[in-house]
Amino acid sequence: MSSVTNTLPATEKGEARRQQVLDAATKCFRRSGFHGTSIARICKVAGMSPGHIYHYFENKEAIVEAIAKREEQDIFELARKVQEDESGGNLAARVARQVPDSVDRCLDPAYLELQLELAAEAARNPTIRRILRQSDAVVTSEFMALSNRVGLPHGLDEAEVELRMKMISAIFNGLMVRGAVGESIDREQMIRLVEKLIRFLLDDAP
Amino acid sequence: MSSVTNTLPATEKGEARRQQVLDAATKCFRRSGFHGTSIARICKVAGMSPGHIYHYFENKEAIVEAIAKREEQDIFELARKVQEDESGGNLAARVARQVPDSVDRCLDPAYLELQLELAAEAARNPTIRRILRQSDAVVTSEFMALSNRVGLPHGLDEAEVELRMKMISAIFNGLMVRGAVGESIDREQMIRLVEKLIRFLLDDAP
Repeated sequence: MSSVTNTLPATEKGEARRQQVLDAATKCFRRSGFHGTSIARICKVAGMSPGHIYHYFENKEAIVEAIAKREEQDIFELARKVQEDESGGNLAARVARQVPDSVDRCLDPAYLELQLELAAEAARNPTIRRILRQSDAVVTSEFMALSNRVGLPHGLDEAEVELRMKMISAIFNGLMVRGAVGESIDREQMIRLVEKLIRFLLDDAP
Repeated sequence: MSSVTNTLPATEKGEARRQQVLDAATKCFRRSGFHGTSIARICKVAGMSPGHIYHYFENKEAIVEAIAKREEQDIFELARKVQEDESGGNLAARVARQVPDSVDRCLDPAYLELQLELAAEAARNPTIRRILRQSDAVVTSEFMALSNRVGLPHGLDEAEVELRMKMISAIFNGLMVRGAVGESIDREQMIRLVEKLIRFLLDDAP
């Protein structure tokens, strides 16, 4: 990685400033796209000088990298919830229990606007693609570690579980796209069907 | 609809010119995004004067509408193939047979670049969102008409089949997003799993 996301010791003040930049950049990317957002614009929205921003982030790509890392943290948090779920059960039951929250997250306009903009940029920009693919690999590893801790579904080997985890991620990504371009779908119906698909993909073989 | 996509009688020459504009616009949207593309730029890439382009399309939104109509035509063609499939079988078997072509289409960089750009724009731009949602409604109707012609899966009513068709569309949309931002997935494995999901969603109840 050529970009360095943080050149400062992570003091609290420094961390707060970094988050301030990320929040401003997120707003700008949503409104005007990655391409249409300048560092000058991010400075203005963040209320900081360019010198300040460059102290934390070398360029817009480094900002996207930090946004992706923040997203990874959310996924780690989700994986922790799945593992510590007191209702217990196998992998399918635990993952299915997170469906309502995950569906709501995907359909949240602020979330889907940013994610779709980054996906569109990744499709044409190899640097952004590399950053997001690397982040996707981290997320997949985390889900595989989780699966191994909870226990792989009977009858599925690791490669198959990994493939199915990627398919589950595709399903949620697809809901995001439909949130932007598709006719709306009843939330409860949608949740019921996604839970069904997750049980189909991750349940123990009969 | 306030935008008028074609003010000319559809002479062959006029139709060829319209397609020339759509091809140029598609290239520009992929490379620079909807927001970053001016009518002047589309003129340059199409090798046409602004007067000429405005003769066919009132604005960029009208161009997106025509691109969406072209996409609808592709879907009608797909529905025709499913219906006329000589191998026959029920709805699940027929739709599953189109999975390899549909997966390849979703992962084609030219296709996913355009679709993700339009989805990202729809997320922030109500006019584009309205155009694409209207197009999605047309596509859903076509799939429902197809389902009724081939025969609804036993045990599923029309509302449930419609929900499941939307889920299948979400799955393909999600593969597009993963094509841009996810680790690559083995094509054969992916196809096998999507076929399985389609059979799960559309097969007759046992």
